[in-house]
Amino acid sequence: MRKGILYVVSGPSGAGKGTVIKEFLPRHPDWFYSISATTRAPRPGEENGVHYYFMEKEEFLRLRENDGFLESAEFCGNHYGTPKAAVMERLEAGKDVLLEIEVQGAMQVMESYPEGIFIFIVPPTMEELRHRLEGRKTEEPSVVEKRLERAKEELRLADKYTYIVVNDSADRAAEEIEAIALAEEGRSARKFDFVKENLL
Amino acid sequence: MRKGILYVVSGPSGAGKGTVIKEFLPRHPDWFYSISATTRAPRPGEENGVHYYFMEKEEFLRLRENDGFLESAEFCGNHYGTPKAAVMERLEAGKDVLLEIEVQGAMQVMESYPEGIFIFIVPPTMEELRHRLEGRKTEEPSVVEKRLERAKEELRLADKYTYIVVNDSADRAAEEIEAIALAEEGRSARKFDFVKENLL
Repeated sequence: MRKGILYVVSGPSGAGKGTVIKEFLPRHPDWFYSISATTRAPRPGEENGVHYYFMEKEEFLRLRENDGFLESAEFCGNHYGTPKAAVMERLEAGKDVLLEIEVQGAMQVMESYPEGIFIFIVPPTMEELRHRLEGRKTEEPSVVEKRLERAKEELRLADKYTYIVVNDSADRAAEEIEAIALAEEGRSARKFDFVKENLL
Repeated sequence: MRKGILYVVSGPSGAGKGTVIKEFLPRHPDWFYSISATTRAPRPGEENGVHYYFMEKEEFLRLRENDGFLESAEFCGNHYGTPKAAVMERLEAGKDVLLEIEVQGAMQVMESYPEGIFIFIVPPTMEELRHRLEGRKTEEPSVVEKRLERAKEELRLADKYTYIVVNDSADRAAEEIEAIALAEEGRSARKFDFVKENLL
């Protein structure tokens, strides 16, 4: 049976990963959108299994020790990670899986699951990235500068990915991801099974 | 400057390469559609530079000796081939190039230009392929059987290609090639130049 494909969507903060995915996902209700696990406390309105899988720290660390994450990281004393089992089950069942993660996490998945398709979302210009980061308003100017610096560092890693998608408009970028998914479906390594089963 | 991409569309006789390309080409007037050279005499209505480049045998053989073809073959005493210079000039000028050739020719281009994108067009079923070959009417039953045998042999080579496209409908298959072209455009090996020039 056809195995599912793991798509990892990543990119610097402010590139618009979330917006692009919000355009893309409703067109693919059959895909499995993987949710992160975290040890941080739920914020008001956040539901377990919808926004995050909320976990106790001991549980998280035990799972991590048992190689139970595709990737994991620690921010401000809280742990975040992508539980491996849920993703692997879907892939084995032939479902395509979409993962939205930070650049460092994506680099870990390249190690743990190199068969994945890695898509790097970039802003059209650095001015636009600054504009988007400033637009969040919640951030102090010094935080914006730090994020821009970090974005530049992360952009240098773009060539490690399979594809680079410029997010000049979320709709257009989502269409590009659709084209990528359609093309990847037809890669001969995958489609040769069709030839063997139906034509030989 | 961005270099053009060479797309080689191939597949067994009767798979419908020509029909798919007729759907695809008008949507991409900027692409260069490469025409074969041949030593056979023009048939009524065939124009030099439109259907083929008609060449004298000596001229063809001299060009072939000087490594002037991306691929070449001999059928029934006539020579056919894809002149290299016209294709290379377009690629260097940043134009995408489309080449429609037989399977043996495509295998030669894989050797001479491995950076190409190789698309293999297959029929949805062998019954459909037989139906299409019989529909040509001009063929004797024994010729149809021979072509089916040859198609089976060629289908075994499908995994050497980059992509496999099932031609269940020419329109849908052309859309799949469009998706492939859009995806290939975004391959990080190509798109990283955009990142370097605009964001770093």
